[in-house]
Amino acid sequence: MASAAAALPAVSAAPAFANTPPARTGAQAPGWFRSKVGDYEITAISDGFVQRPLEGFVRNVEVAEVQKTLAAQGLPGTHIRVPYTTLVVNTGSQVILLDSGNGDFAPGANSGQWMANFRAAGFTPEMVNKVILSHFHGDHINGVRNKAGQLVFPNAELMAPEAEWAFWMDDARMNNAPDAMKPAFQNVRRVFGPSADKVTRYGWDKEVAPGVTSVRADGHSPGHTVFVIASGAGRMMFMADITNTPVLFARHPEWQVLFDMDAQKAIETRKRLLDMVSADRIRSAFYHGPFPAVGQVSRDGGGYRLDMLPWQDAL
Amino acid sequence: MASAAAALPAVSAAPAFANTPPARTGAQAPGWFRSKVGDYEITAISDGFVQRPLEGFVRNVEVAEVQKTLAAQGLPGTHIRVPYTTLVVNTGSQVILLDSGNGDFAPGANSGQWMANFRAAGFTPEMVNKVILSHFHGDHINGVRNKAGQLVFPNAELMAPEAEWAFWMDDARMNNAPDAMKPAFQNVRRVFGPSADKVTRYGWDKEVAPGVTSVRADGHSPGHTVFVIASGAGRMMFMADITNTPVLFARHPEWQVLFDMDAQKAIETRKRLLDMVSADRIRSAFYHGPFPAVGQVSRDGGGYRLDMLPWQDAL
Repeated sequence: MASAAAALPAVSAAPAFANTPPARTGAQAPGWFRSKVGDYEITAISDGFVQRPLEGFVRNVEVAEVQKTLAAQGLPGTHIRVPYTTLVVNTGSQVILLDSGNGDFAPGANSGQWMANFRAAGFTPEMVNKVILSHFHGDHINGVRNKAGQLVFPNAELMAPEAEWAFWMDDARMNNAPDAMKPAFQNVRRVFGPSADKVTRYGWDKEVAPGVTSVRADGHSPGHTVFVIASGAGRMMFMADITNTPVLFARHPEWQVLFDMDAQKAIETRKRLLDMVSADRIRSAFYHGPFPAVGQVSRDGGGYRLDMLPWQDAL
Repeated sequence: MASAAAALPAVSAAPAFANTPPARTGAQAPGWFRSKVGDYEITAISDGFVQRPLEGFVRNVEVAEVQKTLAAQGLPGTHIRVPYTTLVVNTGSQVILLDSGNGDFAPGANSGQWMANFRAAGFTPEMVNKVILSHFHGDHINGVRNKAGQLVFPNAELMAPEAEWAFWMDDARMNNAPDAMKPAFQNVRRVFGPSADKVTRYGWDKEVAPGVTSVRADGHSPGHTVFVIASGAGRMMFMADITNTPVLFARHPEWQVLFDMDAQKAIETRKRLLDMVSADRIRSAFYHGPFPAVGQVSRDGGGYRLDMLPWQDAL
């Protein structure tokens, strides 16, 4: 600060007032954003983001192509920003989490604010009735259990996709998996193992909570699931990892992201669901979308575009 | 709520937990957003928005054209949303407001949250060293003085564009103005009159605060001014009313908004400054942009596009 001030031209007149400015704290507003779907309140909770290198992130196109798509949206071509945004559905009688965020296992200094943002939005862990998980990648389930081994939402039913459970909880599959994949299997056991008998497993096309329906979305992982939230005339789809960041994979649904376990099926699923929400004008929330990550998908050229919901100071 | 719940299909199993959900309060996160320009902290403060009818808003194109541009951005074609977003510049030794918002004179229930958002961001009115005004339309100056007639920022120097002052404070011009315009002249006197001798008038291309330079931007009003904020290698331009909402007038700089006092000059100014910030990659803040209204302008087709700055939970 002193050096920057010194570098500036002299100011004509210093203010004559002896008021004390606040320190520049680096503080940001709490990362939550609320909107309504019918009578339900939907709160997006930010768990920050991680920056990933460009190399290898999109498997079927050159880095230069990725940079072109970033530049077309005014974004730097030096890295890929992958945010994390969970949803809280408040039906008025139930508080439902859709995915849990990173919890104690933030992948870097730019993540790890989930609980602070959740509390800032007026919630406590004790209020949560259900934690409904889309799939078992760590950034979606790690918030369920803390480093000390305790369940973070003590009163919540845990709900997991049947097909995801079958895949990851299969000990034979874990033992035969490549070494690089074993930690993912072990992490699923860390999160669910101590409470395995208490986890409700759900299928697709089921109402997993009042007004919340599970929708088949496999490809990203074997049991990957998205959710339609319905109240009154309102509809919202929680898109989970249909795209990694929509900045790249809504614009180019045919691109393969590093993390898709069955790349071809993931592309088919992505196209099917992006087409559905754009054609039917269903509001969408993207787990890896730029906060607040809630808006309307529209067809745009050969791909799709996410227009964020406008800010409202009150609902 | 009861009726919505009744309309939903029966739920398979009610949760067995006796936790109490929070009421659905309609509360939104406080409307402030912080970013850095060099060593300076820049805080956008939302004063909500107003909805305006489509008819007559854009003077030189048909309503159907306006609706097409709204639809292309996923926006409803039933009205135009005009947000209000002021900036606070915290240099570390001074707190500077760029425009004041509506204060006690909010134009409807969707505005009027400026002071709550300003305080939520960690500021108090007493901290403000300078209030630098871009021009004298009510939504930019009304926050300077409350309904009781008191100055809202008791320790602040008020700074006004010389050309704006000359136009609006000219009693002969007020007396000869059409009746519909007289209230605007009277409002300028309400705000500044009791403190006229304390208002610092500034010209263009002047450093009006440390690192803050006034830039000629007339057309919207006779003395309309924008500001470049510079610290270290960082640059941001506060665009004031170069566009009304950039959703329409950055996309179509040749469109005339109802409120431009010299429409042709306003278009020239708009094009000149949008070209500058896009060519030089200067970050921009739009007074009537969708909150947080801070981002990067890029050329896009025949017009310009604003890509919002990505959210960061900490700076």
